[in-house]
Amino acid sequence: MLTREQNERLIRTDRGTEMGALLRRYWIPALLTEEIPEPDCPPVRVQLLGERLIAFRDSEGRLGLLDEFCSHRTASLFFGRNEECGLRCAYHGWKYDVDGNCVDMPSEPPESRFREKIKQKAYPCIERGGVVWTYMGPAEHQPDLPELEWAMLPDSQVFVSKRLQETNYMQAMEGGIDSSHVSFAHRFNMDDDPMHAGTEGLTYLKADTRPKFEVIESDGGLLIGARRNVDDERYYWRITQWIMPWYTIIPPFGTHNPLGAHAWVPIDDETCWAWSINYHPTRDLRDDELESMHRGDGIHSRNIPGTYRTAANRSNDYLIDRKAQREKRSFSGVEGIAAQDFSLQESMGPIVDRTKERLGTSDAAIILARRRLLAAAEDAAEDAAGLPGENAEHHRVRSASVLLPKSVPFQEGAQEALIVKPGQDFVSI
Amino acid sequence: MLTREQNERLIRTDRGTEMGALLRRYWIPALLTEEIPEPDCPPVRVQLLGERLIAFRDSEGRLGLLDEFCSHRTASLFFGRNEECGLRCAYHGWKYDVDGNCVDMPSEPPESRFREKIKQKAYPCIERGGVVWTYMGPAEHQPDLPELEWAMLPDSQVFVSKRLQETNYMQAMEGGIDSSHVSFAHRFNMDDDPMHAGTEGLTYLKADTRPKFEVIESDGGLLIGARRNVDDERYYWRITQWIMPWYTIIPPFGTHNPLGAHAWVPIDDETCWAWSINYHPTRDLRDDELESMHRGDGIHSRNIPGTYRTAANRSNDYLIDRKAQREKRSFSGVEGIAAQDFSLQESMGPIVDRTKERLGTSDAAIILARRRLLAAAEDAAEDAAGLPGENAEHHRVRSASVLLPKSVPFQEGAQEALIVKPGQDFVSI
Amino acid sequence: MLTREQNERLIRTDRGTEMGALLRRYWIPALLTEEIPEPDCPPVRVQLLGERLIAFRDSEGRLGLLDEFCSHRTASLFFGRNEECGLRCAYHGWKYDVDGNCVDMPSEPPESRFREKIKQKAYPCIERGGVVWTYMGPAEHQPDLPELEWAMLPDSQVFVSKRLQETNYMQAMEGGIDSSHVSFAHRFNMDDDPMHAGTEGLTYLKADTRPKFEVIESDGGLLIGARRNVDDERYYWRITQWIMPWYTIIPPFGTHNPLGAHAWVPIDDETCWAWSINYHPTRDLRDDELESMHRGDGIHSRNIPGTYRTAANRSNDYLIDRKAQREKRSFSGVEGIAAQDFSLQESMGPIVDRTKERLGTSDAAIILARRRLLAAAEDAAEDAAGLPGENAEHHRVRSASVLLPKSVPFQEGAQEALIVKPGQDFVSI
Repeated sequence: MLTREQNERLIRTDRGTEMGALLRRYWIPALLTEEIPEPDCPPVRVQLLGERLIAFRDSEGRLGLLDEFCSHRTASLFFGRNEECGLRCAYHGWKYDVDGNCVDMPSEPPESRFREKIKQKAYPCIERGGVVWTYMGPAEHQPDLPELEWAMLPDSQVFVSKRLQETNYMQAMEGGIDSSHVSFAHRFNMDDDPMHAGTEGLTYLKADTRPKFEVIESDGGLLIGARRNVDDERYYWRITQWIMPWYTIIPPFGTHNPLGAHAWVPIDDETCWAWSINYHPTRDLRDDELESMHRGDGIHSRNIPGTYRTAANRSNDYLIDRKAQREKRSFSGVEGIAAQDFSLQESMGPIVDRTKERLGTSDAAIILARRRLLAAAEDAAEDAAGLPGENAEHHRVRSASVLLPKSVPFQEGAQEALIVKPGQDFVSI
Repeated sequence: MLTREQNERLIRTDRGTEMGALLRRYWIPALLTEEIPEPDCPPVRVQLLGERLIAFRDSEGRLGLLDEFCSHRTASLFFGRNEECGLRCAYHGWKYDVDGNCVDMPSEPPESRFREKIKQKAYPCIERGGVVWTYMGPAEHQPDLPELEWAMLPDSQVFVSKRLQETNYMQAMEGGIDSSHVSFAHRFNMDDDPMHAGTEGLTYLKADTRPKFEVIESDGGLLIGARRNVDDERYYWRITQWIMPWYTIIPPFGTHNPLGAHAWVPIDDETCWAWSINYHPTRDLRDDELESMHRGDGIHSRNIPGTYRTAANRSNDYLIDRKAQREKRSFSGVEGIAAQDFSLQESMGPIVDRTKERLGTSDAAIILARRRLLAAAEDAAEDAAGLPGENAEHHRVRSASVLLPKSVPFQEGAQEALIVKPGQDFVSI
Repeated sequence: MLTREQNERLIRTDRGTEMGALLRRYWIPALLTEEIPEPDCPPVRVQLLGERLIAFRDSEGRLGLLDEFCSHRTASLFFGRNEECGLRCAYHGWKYDVDGNCVDMPSEPPESRFREKIKQKAYPCIERGGVVWTYMGPAEHQPDLPELEWAMLPDSQVFVSKRLQETNYMQAMEGGIDSSHVSFAHRFNMDDDPMHAGTEGLTYLKADTRPKFEVIESDGGLLIGARRNVDDERYYWRITQWIMPWYTIIPPFGTHNPLGAHAWVPIDDETCWAWSINYHPTRDLRDDELESMHRGDGIHSRNIPGTYRTAANRSNDYLIDRKAQREKRSFSGVEGIAAQDFSLQESMGPIVDRTKERLGTSDAAIILARRRLLAAAEDAAEDAAGLPGENAEHHRVRSASVLLPKSVPFQEGAQEALIVKPGQDFVSI
């Protein structure tokens, strides 16, 4: 439970807000590289943290991310022509390069130097892990490039998708941090997914439906441990990484399956991008796995073709199937792990009123994540350097699922399992 | 004509408003029993007086009406599982009984007593006349159970339907109170309806198109008399009952036809439920009558299948047929008595600006109904007991249509006709 | 670039605003005569300058334009019956004539004189050039009737269409004033249109893509000269007329083609009517020309059948064709001259933020038009007479395209070409 004022601070991310200033201190997953696949392809609308932008790839393959609206008369560059190393506005022909320089201004006399005074807002971009990332913050604070494990692997080992979620980013991310909902929202679907099925972990998960949570601060965010009883001597620990400001990594089931991760990025205060990533550190994804991911299984979603909007959505009550609910094929009647999550999160309304919550011990991770974000926002407001999650070291972490003696704290027992070892397998049962 | 401030007082019904407090002193028609037909059926969203609620019928058949949003993290209970005498939230499994007690909280340790502190808002419900009624006010003021004639008859003698109206409840109810519009809005349709056709009353109605109105206060609301000249000695009186806060009964044509009644209940400030009821005090409804009512004839409406939204609605200009208007088959070109009313009421906008009206003598009933509601709202604000319409006695009334000598006041001449006599026929020509 | 306060003054046109008061000093193109084609035809909703109105043609063929909402209980007169020289409200039968007098009030007793107190707001209308015009301002300031050349020609020489534009009127009109966008937005489409093709003017237009602009005040608005180099001695001048408050005339290509003109009229602050007119002063329009105009070619638009809303619109990204853009068949990928304009204008949002613009020398006409409107609005606020564009003389002007010696100012060299000479051809190369 937050005060109204705390809730406001947490959720508002436009330029000029405290949380907006914090989030602009990080590299931001902006769009899929598949959206601007080749030189001089059509420009694409992108909205991030309330700012409306246009992404394009110029004739040399360079990435540009500009203010959507032309500096001249504010027509949208969505209608612009991507031609000869620049994007040319369709209204009067002003042309911009990827850095926002106005490189041609045909509406003015040739001798005019007006164009030198024009600078279209432009953000630097990089490409990594199938994602175009941008940095929208002050140049002096530009952090290390993103080094999340999935972003550093060869393309053949990674699958990335995104979907539009009709809630504030925080509401979506809280679902990613909160592993206690798994036992309910996904209760009847744990066995369906070949990525869980038949693992030792799943047996323990089902045997103890009331896990205890231990949450501790990591350098880059939080380590969220959920422990279940196995026998008199051992706990089964599932350890989730939350990396500031919006990354989560799901604890694995077995090592033969790909890992899963997410990013939750504000579009505006009432919508966000839910990014979903499967990856395997030591092998290519198989064709059958890729086919299933493309279909929208598991943590991915069935999107309306040609869009990143889900087929099951608020306008159709997420295609709820009351028969499936009655027959215990789906706890809420909604089909699919992802849709089970976002249907519930969206059911709270686009911005949840956190003054009305009644939080229990299982909500510890959510409470601490909010606290850490609010504290970091205060640091950012004072222009502090070295925020959690800024350093590439903070990215090089893994989630894990392990058996440990009851006497061993999970962060010690799993210490090595929680660090990325390039080329080496992860730890999971 | 009202002042802006009076209009605001009249139309706002959320918790915390003056009119909201008044309306919460009465039993409220909440939903059709057919919407939650059997134990453990799917829960249903219900919105009343601005409050978003979930209705369900538990394993024992008990009725529950809870705050829609789970006390824990405010996910909607619409996705909840109705199981073993409670509704279980699909997010983390908190489970509530019909009284709002949290009867299971599986996300917390077994020893936790947190759940005892949780109370989901819950309103008492009863079932009567095919309707689930609820009471949303203070326990100490809970009034008599509803005893409207139609609510007390065997199922075989009653037909109830509802439709969504896209206006404030008051605008809809004013149409029910105002019998002077009948001569215009429904002008060319009076003969179509077998429920009017061929009665003596209809002959008199058509012979004098400028009725005079006399409105007097009854114990529970208003008696609205519309008198028409028959000959030198007699008036034809049509007497409408308005029962606080939202019930109207239509004066009958003949005694062989069923009676008609309405209730007008706020969903929020811009929409309401229009309830329409046909009933006969002394006989079962016939199959042909029921078929016609199911089809949406008369005071009922043609709804989009599977919904309570009308097929003719604002988005399609109520399927207006200008040819029918030109050829005098419908005065406004809209088909059906109900649609003729709600099309005009919605055409004023969701909340009519009553500061712009120019009211005449034929609007006397509307003027007095507003006044009585505003006065009762003041009484309720002072926590007064004994509001009009609270007492079951106030419900046991009938409308009537009678011939009376010109010298006899209608409330005297029709006195006996205006009281429910169980098992006895009503008075009508 | 304007201050926020100037922008607000420019765009707000509801009753009570400064610009609203100015625009109400002129005759307003309100609807096409084809919308109310014959006596007693159905009434039509019309919104102008934020006011919701109903247009009808009475039994005698007289034009009425009334407040949409009945004085009695504010039901919409859209559902009214147009009968026997008046429009009768469908709710209680109050009937109004074209002057807004209440000519029948059947809900009140015959002896009542209440109806004499009722006056429905009504605006005078005239019919000219296929358009119904109205005057919404103070009677003492009613100006000359509109005498734009196209409004005074026989029907056979004129074609008028309208379309809904989802922007403020000013944003649309700025496109009509601004001829510098032609070289880009319409770049690849100049040859398609038989109305331009093969003219001497088009050759010069394409040879010099950086015209210089000279803008001077005319009695009724602005003369906007765009000059291009032809050879050492001559300029090719294209001269646009802007007539206060919302008319533009396109400079012609050749004299064999019809002329083109526009009017840009506020519906409310976020939408406007874009009127498009083709006309020839000395001959009938040909069948093939009319066919093409009906189809929506040239300055007209392809509308959704039965509506004045364009088939290509914001909801479908104007049916943008990226292949056509890549292959240089359309600069923005949008098809059609009109759609190329309104897509870009709408892309700025319904109300452009003029504090963010960066205007160059090619924007001189826009700058001066804004200035003149704001100045006239100040005059109107002081109740001044003789505003630019009020006098019929101001309407009797033409645009022109001419070759002139470099030493001759365009307003002198083209002086005669810029005046309407009834029955005589216009001047164009």
